[in-house]
Amino acid sequence: MDAIHVTISYHENFRETVLNFEKWNRWFEQYPPDLIMKGGQWVSDIDKARETSRTAVFFGFQNPPSPIEDDIGLVEIVHTLGARFMQLTYNNQSLLATGCYEAEDTGLTRMGKQVVKEMNRVGLVVDMSHSADRSTIEAAEFSTRPPIAITHANPHDWSPALRNKKDAVIRAVTENGGMFGFSVYPHHLKDKSDCTLESFCEMIARTADTYGGVEHLGGIGTDLCQDQPDSIVEWMRVGRWTKEIDYGEGSKSAPGFPPMPSWFEDNRHFGNIETGLRAVGMSEAEVAAIMGGNWYRFFAENFGPPKAAS
Amino acid sequence: MDAIHVTISYHENFRETVLNFEKWNRWFEQYPPDLIMKGGQWVSDIDKARETSRTAVFFGFQNPPSPIEDDIGLVEIVHTLGARFMQLTYNNQSLLATGCYEAEDTGLTRMGKQVVKEMNRVGLVVDMSHSADRSTIEAAEFSTRPPIAITHANPHDWSPALRNKKDAVIRAVTENGGMFGFSVYPHHLKDKSDCTLESFCEMIARTADTYGGVEHLGGIGTDLCQDQPDSIVEWMRVGRWTKEIDYGEGSKSAPGFPPMPSWFEDNRHFGNIETGLRAVGMSEAEVAAIMGGNWYRFFAENFGPPKAAS
Repeated sequence: MDAIHVTISYHENFRETVLNFEKWNRWFEQYPPDLIMKGGQWVSDIDKARETSRTAVFFGFQNPPSPIEDDIGLVEIVHTLGARFMQLTYNNQSLLATGCYEAEDTGLTRMGKQVVKEMNRVGLVVDMSHSADRSTIEAAEFSTRPPIAITHANPHDWSPALRNKKDAVIRAVTENGGMFGFSVYPHHLKDKSDCTLESFCEMIARTADTYGGVEHLGGIGTDLCQDQPDSIVEWMRVGRWTKEIDYGEGSKSAPGFPPMPSWFEDNRHFGNIETGLRAVGMSEAEVAAIMGGNWYRFFAENFGPPKAAS
Repeated sequence: MDAIHVTISYHENFRETVLNFEKWNRWFEQYPPDLIMKGGQWVSDIDKARETSRTAVFFGFQNPPSPIEDDIGLVEIVHTLGARFMQLTYNNQSLLATGCYEAEDTGLTRMGKQVVKEMNRVGLVVDMSHSADRSTIEAAEFSTRPPIAITHANPHDWSPALRNKKDAVIRAVTENGGMFGFSVYPHHLKDKSDCTLESFCEMIARTADTYGGVEHLGGIGTDLCQDQPDSIVEWMRVGRWTKEIDYGEGSKSAPGFPPMPSWFEDNRHFGNIETGLRAVGMSEAEVAAIMGGNWYRFFAENFGPPKAAS
C-alpha cells in the first residue's frame, strides 16, 4: 500500500479534530519511519512513499461541518493541516447538504455552496459518499476543481443499500470527472458478509463498462474499520446528536461491525481483489487502474504541489 | 521590505489564534497579490518575495502558552499553520518561564524545557525578548537548533529599561549563536521619543563590537505598532489576566503608545537607519548585515524547507 485515506474526524469539533491531528503527529514520531509517512498532501508524496516502501497517510473528515464548525475560514486551515477529503454530510442533514438517511433532500444549502467554492479554491475534495441523491448531483454539478468523489459506496442496482448509489447519481459524478471508490463494507455488498469475490469483481467490471470505462471510473474505497472497537462505530453513527441509539446500516440485533467477507478480512487481502479482477477478464492495465492507478491520476490532477503564487 | 514578522497572538487561546490566521488568509486573498505574500515559512520565501517585489509575512506569538494552551502537541500544529517565532513568556510568569516583570525568576519550568525541545524539533524559534534574565540565559543554553533570539530589545547599559538586556544575557544569547533585534520602541530607547538617530546607531555599532561583530550579531526588530489603536496596546499588557490596568512600560499619565522618534515614524523610515549606520562608520557590508543580511542568514540556517524524511 503506497497510500491510504484515514478518517480523522466524524463528530469531532475543530479543537477535537486538531487533537486527532496531534495524535497522528505523535504516531509519525513514535513508529518506525520506514512504515508510515506523514504528509499525504501532494501526489509526489505517493511517489516518495512508493520509492521508500512506506505508506503515505491522507486525511479526511466524514461529518462536516463539525470539524470546520460554522466557520468557512477553517476550510483553508484544515487543508493546511493536511485534510484532503471532506464529506458535506454524514447520514443526517448538515449545514451544507442533506444526508442519505433524511426523508427530504433539499440539496446544497446556502452555506454548502460557499463551502464547496472554498474547498475548490484550496484543493479539498468534496466527498458525497454519505449524502442524499439530489445533494450529490447538485454538488457534482456545482463543484469545479477538484471534481467530487464518492469514495466508498457501490451501485444501488447491485445491492440496494441506502448508502449505495443510484444510476443518476453515479452518472452525475462520473460525467463531471469525479471518482468512485468501491466499498467492501459488508452492508454495501450483495449478500453482505456472504458476498463472493466473483460477484464483487463482476460488479466493478460492469460498473466500469457502464460509466465510461475502467481507465476513468474508480478505485477501491474499502470503508475498512480494522481493529477498531464497536464504540468507534457508535461514535460514527451517534456522535452527540441523539440520546437514542441509531444503528445506521446495522440493527438492534446486529449493532456492531459485521464480519468481513472471507476474501477481504483486512488490509492484507488487497491481492485477492487483484486476482478477482483478473478472473473476470480485466487486462493488467485495467487491474492496475482499479487497484490504484485511477486514484493516483485523480491525486495528480488535484493534489499537485501548491502553485507558485503569481 | 522583503520580509516582516507579525505578532499573531498575545493572549489569544488556540482557537482565537487560528481566527487570526484565518483573518490573515483573507487578507492574502483580498489584497493585491503583488503587495504581500502568504507563507513566510522558509528562507526561500524571502528570495521569492524579493524577486517579485513583495513582502513575505512571518508569524509569531508573544504570550505563550496561550496559543498552545497547555498542550505540547499544538507546537507542531501552530508551526504547520505558519508560526516561526514564539516567546516563552510575555511580561508575567508563564507555564514555560519567567517574564521580565516578575519579582522572582525561577528559570525554565518543567514544561518549558519540554516545549523548547519540541520547538527545536519542529523548527520554531524561542524568542526571549520579554523574559527575565535567568530564564533567558537558561533558554539560550538549553536550546539547540534553532538558537534562541531576542527579537526586540536593546542593551540595558545604553537605556536601563526593564525590557532591555543586561550584558550577561546578551552574552549568553550571542555565544550560543542567537540573534539580537534592535528595537525602536521609544520605551527601549535612550531618552525615549527624543532619542537621536546617532545615539541609536552608535549603540548598534558598539554592541556589535562587544558581542562578536556586525556580521553575526543582529538586525532590526522594530517592535512597531503602526496604525494600531491603543486598545491593542492594552490587550498586549492586560489580556484577561487582570481586572486592573497594567501600564507595562507606559504609565497612568501616558498609557498609550508613545510618539515614535522623528527618524523612525513608520515603516517608510528604514532608510534613515541605513544612513545613520553609515554615518557612524559602518561599511556597506556591515550596514547590509544589520539591515537584513543577518536575519536572512538566521532564517537560512533555521527555516530551510522541511527535510526530506529519511
